[in-house]
Amino acid sequence: MATEPSDSAELVLAFLAEAGDEVVSGEAISDKLGLTRAAVWKHVNALRARGYRIDAVPARGYRLAEVPDRLTALELRPLLNTHDLGQVLHAHEELASTNDRARELAEEGAAHGEVVIAERQTAGRGRRGRAWISPARKNLYFSAILRPDLPTARAPEVTLVASLAVCDVLRQAGVDAGIKWPNDVLAGGRKIAGILTELAAEPDRVHWIVVGVGVNVNARAEDFPDDLRGEATSVLLERGEPAPRALFAAACLTALEGWLDVHEEQGFGPIREAWRERSVTLGREVRVRVDDGELAGTAEDIDDAGALLVRTASGLERVLAGDVRLLRPR
Amino acid sequence: MATEPSDSAELVLAFLAEAGDEVVSGEAISDKLGLTRAAVWKHVNALRARGYRIDAVPARGYRLAEVPDRLTALELRPLLNTHDLGQVLHAHEELASTNDRARELAEEGAAHGEVVIAERQTAGRGRRGRAWISPARKNLYFSAILRPDLPTARAPEVTLVASLAVCDVLRQAGVDAGIKWPNDVLAGGRKIAGILTELAAEPDRVHWIVVGVGVNVNARAEDFPDDLRGEATSVLLERGEPAPRALFAAACLTALEGWLDVHEEQGFGPIREAWRERSVTLGREVRVRVDDGELAGTAEDIDDAGALLVRTASGLERVLAGDVRLLRPR
Repeated sequence: MATEPSDSAELVLAFLAEAGDEVVSGEAISDKLGLTRAAVWKHVNALRARGYRIDAVPARGYRLAEVPDRLTALELRPLLNTHDLGQVLHAHEELASTNDRARELAEEGAAHGEVVIAERQTAGRGRRGRAWISPARKNLYFSAILRPDLPTARAPEVTLVASLAVCDVLRQAGVDAGIKWPNDVLAGGRKIAGILTELAAEPDRVHWIVVGVGVNVNARAEDFPDDLRGEATSVLLERGEPAPRALFAAACLTALEGWLDVHEEQGFGPIREAWRERSVTLGREVRVRVDDGELAGTAEDIDDAGALLVRTASGLERVLAGDVRLLRPR
Repeated sequence: MATEPSDSAELVLAFLAEAGDEVVSGEAISDKLGLTRAAVWKHVNALRARGYRIDAVPARGYRLAEVPDRLTALELRPLLNTHDLGQVLHAHEELASTNDRARELAEEGAAHGEVVIAERQTAGRGRRGRAWISPARKNLYFSAILRPDLPTARAPEVTLVASLAVCDVLRQAGVDAGIKWPNDVLAGGRKIAGILTELAAEPDRVHWIVVGVGVNVNARAEDFPDDLRGEATSVLLERGEPAPRALFAAACLTALEGWLDVHEEQGFGPIREAWRERSVTLGREVRVRVDDGELAGTAEDIDDAGALLVRTASGLERVLAGDVRLLRPR
């Protein structure tokens, strides 16, 4: 549960993690961290004993080849390249829902950036109270507590921000991911990640936003219920090999913080632009279930509030909330 | 706490309350309620025993002259002319804050229209965590739990809806009230009522909205702290005589439901129109403290999302959130 203080072994791990697939020389590590070469060697061995696979490449240095498939603060903290997000980490073996726990923490005064993560959810939720299938130790379920300085009317933008981060990390992992409005992430037309944003607010000011992210990482077809199998996919299914969940989680938090910073500093403009580039909705024929019926037309754009603009037979309709069905395959 | 079932005495009371200052014939009451004239007489006397002053006007009928100055379900229920609002009423002698209690009830699943009311708040709050002075048995403090079918971006509209209701009831009570953007109600340039709206939501759907209303009804100058005395006023101070709080509360709930119905059925258009008519902000020179500074200009209009449009030296600015200071007296 508690976040551990960084020791030198964690600093070495962080350095290796930041280098990704690159080989890092022992000298670079010892220079950067002010450690002797012998100390670096000792820490590398300590990390190996904790389950990290670190390749030693003769005459070149070290490469982080594999991290233990556990999502505790011990694994995640050294992998994080963030100033706030996940620096306080509430890691659980099992929760009903990471969003529920994060909302409780937010109400109790948790700070911006605190993150709740679980190996398994017993009552995982998607948008509008729908169930989110959450098998143990296969996928990623986390919720970040955010306290942006935003009027409530702009809160929906944060959902789009989060979808950018998840889409980018999936693409870095070699998955051809795209975003379906407002914030489902698809690969090959199937859902690979979902985002559930909940918030408490006054009308002119957000108190807190909890961004819940579920990513199907290493789920196999049989992990999905029969009726979802045609609609859901995972990183494993898409690229044929499993992904290291801890690295994936850390990458998501880093990317999320990066896009949140862009949003805070430059507003919705660059978010809208980036979202358009990753969209699988725009330009498509869609049917949108809205509260008082259904709407059919071409998804033309999102506006400067993140609303979907649909060109229908009777004109341009602005959709603030609704479920989108894409009609023709991409 | 509990809401009482209506008995015939309450029906008689409701009938008289609906007539307002009008005299109602005993015959009309007995016809309408299917009671004998003797039964009506009995109920009128029972009501008098409970503290209601009911004048008998010879050869004409009855008139409700005064209701007991208590805010319990027993007094309020018969005065309510609503389908939902206040039909479940949580009445308390003292609460920290009616909004806090209403939010708890909402999280526990309270239905649309449930209302929390208190004779006194020990930690009354206004917008942005500011204190709201809440002396006992002088004023009105209530919070209504609403479950509108609204996307979150439209939640700010509900605040304007509530300000219309409070403004109308004050005007009916003979106070020259107007609304300062977004939702302070002023009389003679001083604050007479405030509205604190809080909500829980997903970005595309409001889960619940709690509308907290504080009205200075019978507060005297000495009930306000020194530093607020120049900025606050009350119904008593404005018109020189106290107002019956129970009738005032019932009128507020009835008016609020009326405007909420308009909003639900016709959208923001008529709300915007009505708000403009009651505004003391539009056309005025204002200074607006926004998150990243201050903005000066003429308050020109509110737009179709309720944002304030201010004409500044550098163009038209759209203000979603901020504190407005009116520069020249009206």
